[in-house]
Amino acid sequence: MNAAIRAVVRQADALGHETWGIYRGYQGLLEGDLEPLPSRACANILQRGGTILQTARCLAFHQPETRAEAARILKEAGIGALVVIGGDGSFRAAQALMREHGVACAGIPGTIDNDLPGTDRTLGFDTALNTAVEAIDRIRDTASSHGRLFLVEVMGRSSGMLAVHTALACGAEAVLYPESPEDSLENLVTRLKAHWDAGKRSSIVVVAEGDTVGRAMAVGEQLRQEHALDLRVVVLGHIQRGGSPTALDRIWGSRWGAEAVRRLDRGERGFYMAEVAGAAVAQPLSRVLDPQPLPPGDLGILVSVLSR
Amino acid sequence: MNAAIRAVVRQADALGHETWGIYRGYQGLLEGDLEPLPSRACANILQRGGTILQTARCLAFHQPETRAEAARILKEAGIGALVVIGGDGSFRAAQALMREHGVACAGIPGTIDNDLPGTDRTLGFDTALNTAVEAIDRIRDTASSHGRLFLVEVMGRSSGMLAVHTALACGAEAVLYPESPEDSLENLVTRLKAHWDAGKRSSIVVVAEGDTVGRAMAVGEQLRQEHALDLRVVVLGHIQRGGSPTALDRIWGSRWGAEAVRRLDRGERGFYMAEVAGAAVAQPLSRVLDPQPLPPGDLGILVSVLSR
Amino acid sequence: MNAAIRAVVRQADALGHETWGIYRGYQGLLEGDLEPLPSRACANILQRGGTILQTARCLAFHQPETRAEAARILKEAGIGALVVIGGDGSFRAAQALMREHGVACAGIPGTIDNDLPGTDRTLGFDTALNTAVEAIDRIRDTASSHGRLFLVEVMGRSSGMLAVHTALACGAEAVLYPESPEDSLENLVTRLKAHWDAGKRSSIVVVAEGDTVGRAMAVGEQLRQEHALDLRVVVLGHIQRGGSPTALDRIWGSRWGAEAVRRLDRGERGFYMAEVAGAAVAQPLSRVLDPQPLPPGDLGILVSVLSR
Amino acid sequence: MNAAIRAVVRQADALGHETWGIYRGYQGLLEGDLEPLPSRACANILQRGGTILQTARCLAFHQPETRAEAARILKEAGIGALVVIGGDGSFRAAQALMREHGVACAGIPGTIDNDLPGTDRTLGFDTALNTAVEAIDRIRDTASSHGRLFLVEVMGRSSGMLAVHTALACGAEAVLYPESPEDSLENLVTRLKAHWDAGKRSSIVVVAEGDTVGRAMAVGEQLRQEHALDLRVVVLGHIQRGGSPTALDRIWGSRWGAEAVRRLDRGERGFYMAEVAGAAVAQPLSRVLDPQPLPPGDLGILVSVLSR
Repeated sequence: MNAAIRAVVRQADALGHETWGIYRGYQGLLEGDLEPLPSRACANILQRGGTILQTARCLAFHQPETRAEAARILKEAGIGALVVIGGDGSFRAAQALMREHGVACAGIPGTIDNDLPGTDRTLGFDTALNTAVEAIDRIRDTASSHGRLFLVEVMGRSSGMLAVHTALACGAEAVLYPESPEDSLENLVTRLKAHWDAGKRSSIVVVAEGDTVGRAMAVGEQLRQEHALDLRVVVLGHIQRGGSPTALDRIWGSRWGAEAVRRLDRGERGFYMAEVAGAAVAQPLSRVLDPQPLPPGDLGILVSVLSR
Repeated sequence: MNAAIRAVVRQADALGHETWGIYRGYQGLLEGDLEPLPSRACANILQRGGTILQTARCLAFHQPETRAEAARILKEAGIGALVVIGGDGSFRAAQALMREHGVACAGIPGTIDNDLPGTDRTLGFDTALNTAVEAIDRIRDTASSHGRLFLVEVMGRSSGMLAVHTALACGAEAVLYPESPEDSLENLVTRLKAHWDAGKRSSIVVVAEGDTVGRAMAVGEQLRQEHALDLRVVVLGHIQRGGSPTALDRIWGSRWGAEAVRRLDRGERGFYMAEVAGAAVAQPLSRVLDPQPLPPGDLGILVSVLSR
Repeated sequence: MNAAIRAVVRQADALGHETWGIYRGYQGLLEGDLEPLPSRACANILQRGGTILQTARCLAFHQPETRAEAARILKEAGIGALVVIGGDGSFRAAQALMREHGVACAGIPGTIDNDLPGTDRTLGFDTALNTAVEAIDRIRDTASSHGRLFLVEVMGRSSGMLAVHTALACGAEAVLYPESPEDSLENLVTRLKAHWDAGKRSSIVVVAEGDTVGRAMAVGEQLRQEHALDLRVVVLGHIQRGGSPTALDRIWGSRWGAEAVRRLDRGERGFYMAEVAGAAVAQPLSRVLDPQPLPPGDLGILVSVLSR
Repeated sequence: MNAAIRAVVRQADALGHETWGIYRGYQGLLEGDLEPLPSRACANILQRGGTILQTARCLAFHQPETRAEAARILKEAGIGALVVIGGDGSFRAAQALMREHGVACAGIPGTIDNDLPGTDRTLGFDTALNTAVEAIDRIRDTASSHGRLFLVEVMGRSSGMLAVHTALACGAEAVLYPESPEDSLENLVTRLKAHWDAGKRSSIVVVAEGDTVGRAMAVGEQLRQEHALDLRVVVLGHIQRGGSPTALDRIWGSRWGAEAVRRLDRGERGFYMAEVAGAAVAQPLSRVLDPQPLPPGDLGILVSVLSR
């Protein structure tokens, strides 16, 4: 996200605009926690994980009167346009701000779940994917040395996108994710037993977090009890967040940040940046209400084919 | 590349074909250095750099009689189709083998330079990019601590693709690459001096290798002599190759390897796998003669805008 | 561990001995799962995590008759000396083998817990330490961005050694480990509240696994219920194992492996390699019964001092 | 180094002292570039490479009158004791400041060369070692895939310490360093040819930088011309500096920083922190004039034994 912040500030600077940073999202905005963010404050932030502007949840923003207060604060501070980095919740709030109070808004997709409609990418996904893959490479060393079965849970609130990409990249023997038609324990057990019969001694199964953190724990318990399998469970959890971003996340953060400012400068409003077929384009903020993208089914099938 | 080898072997296995591995490319083929490559030989290779089949140059392959010998060896071994992983030289040889001797060939783009026509990606590019970025992040620590100017040379025989992506991802103050209209020392010196006047104490300039390894050394010498600049030169060289591949390189290697085999199995010939607008497609081998892709000019400009 | 295996094989080779590899520890020995391990089988294994010889638990080895069987298998195979890489359990078994059946044994400390008497280091500790620190650096990014409290559980069956070193290296606000006199929730809560009063917004507490994997979960639940703290729990678990070993682990594996063979070649028996005050020395196998080393108390105190 | 800075500040804070940060070393001191460094300025710096206080050469400090000026500035600022992080040059200057002007000085060894008398460790060595090893692991992938000979130059102004540790940790086939009695090209060529006769296809030779950066280039040229060897040269150079420090460097930086302040607080002067046989001790500043430590000869021999 820091790449996007840096790009917004410096592109705005190049076009003659001043940028203010709002700390801790909508919550900070309501508390007046904002200040000028000069170009030099963005030196050497590109390689740092997290965000220099911090982040926070703000449930109160669901109230119309709270949004009115936010619009008033922005106006008083003389802020002409708002760039919001976040997921679908943040974008819906931005849309409401624009519709109700005419605040000029632009969005930049920033969520590791890659579950936003209208874009093939969100900032943080490539970094989280590589972090998960590195962690599972390590677990693979132990699985191979000990001849063990591991269930590894990866993030993804409502989407198996991260799970299926991770499974393919780390050569997992199977992947469980909600959208998959093959997502059943019976299928899984049948497949694992076929591997073991063919002489495989170790197995890694990637499990999408789904609705509940710790889903892998429940699945593991069921496999132990109903199928008498000996296994270990690892929940990657928060280690998938943070860390120095990958090159791709930095490049797209930079492109989107700069492009969002150029579009605002040209008078465009109510859009969010997206990658569609490799190109940086803008989508109307209303598209955030479209159904969320599904993880490519053929990748899930590929995991099965390649695990032979 | 190991991801692609593994995918070829396992997809072929799933379709009922046997796979042989040819060591050291065309050179090994001529020496009869090939053997069956079973599924289990591809366990745990996904995360390893380099290639389990090794590689070598083979200048003799430019001779028609050498290619005739190669075709004879393939025929004798009962090999019905050849999957070639490599760059434009390897693909031209494959095309000649097919045209002259009817060998069924498929190509998978494998070169860190990302300079192949008809595809947005080649295997190894994303890994080399992230390796270069990590190395320059380290150099940035020193540049900041010491207030220094560094020239860093990245690979790219005939293309600035790697240089311009690296420069953007590591927040370089400037990038020199052959295809750029701004690639002049005068421009560079003017821009650096503007930075220093504005208070920047350290600078990193990414230099594309171009025709000659060590171009950064020559540029450095010229900057020292003609412009009296104090600077350090680092040539990243071979540390950009090798290393555990990134998730994206593994995923595309797996997709392309499996898809190439499925297409051969369906009777297609004379193609190479490619990424176009995010999709895995096939290009005719003849497209390798098209002009090489240029690094996106707008990324080069973005480096300048964001270096303020 | 692969560094030690490689050093054993190559040093033995240099002294004119042949080496056999026994797969899956004592379990594999009993099953006759052993074969010659030539020098060339150890090429390029130094940088790989896990062990090429695999590992397994073998509860049956507690029975005298099982050990007699193992001694018989070794004698039949003409194996003159046994090098055991492992922790205190493996060393006790080796001692019994020697006392009861005269098998010439040498030990090399290999456990990430660093809880072996008589040595300042065990193979894998430095690697596990750096892996844990990297993971917590990532978590710190999130903790800082979100202003959150995290409990992070690190391994260490019966020792807080890994926990206290990790806490110091990642700048944790506090560390809970069994041997600490300060290991109480009341102390912890008091300290955390002092930090928050002083304006700190995020905190990381490292928790030693102790007797039960998941201790951090229990502690977290208690903090939530009794002290109404909002927090997140991360159990690093198996991601601390595996991964390419650090330079120090490779160097000590190489030194110990070579030195163990040189000592066996000179006729020494019944020892294990150790680091004492920076030097590679040998300890009698019987020392494994000594009390386990305690994590340095002054490091625990240092965590408190530096967390201000 | 940031670990040491943080520890100095926070230990001083705990003892009731205020700390000032001097930017760019002695040069910054002379220019009055110093300011209060509060505890909170040291948040989240532990994991960052380089130094937040920056660094610079200061040749003028060899003049007695310059040192008098420095002492005057320190006195005027009311600074009662100086903690110097650096190598032998910085420590000699500190000694002169103390002898000539009674400035209370303490030193913390910070140089990646590990060439300071009286200590087994200097801050940055473990990080540089691991960085070099990771880079050579990557080069090994290419060397193995291509069957090539690589010369890799590592840092070490006047000491082969980094070279010999790196060579052992990355399984190099040979190491050239000034202090070695075997450091001759004839020995090297004989050994490499023995490897190739035994079937080894790739080799990595680590070369200590020695007096001249680029020594590996000269050695490579000689091997090409006099022995007709085909090889590649890689100069690791500045990528060995910087980067997030390893756990050990952070732990020792923290221990030394805190201990230096505790000793100054107790009235000790004119010492530098050191690791001797695993313990944190203090050495008199005058010991910096002792002969520099030699890299352990037995490690160099071990490289030869293990390269079979």
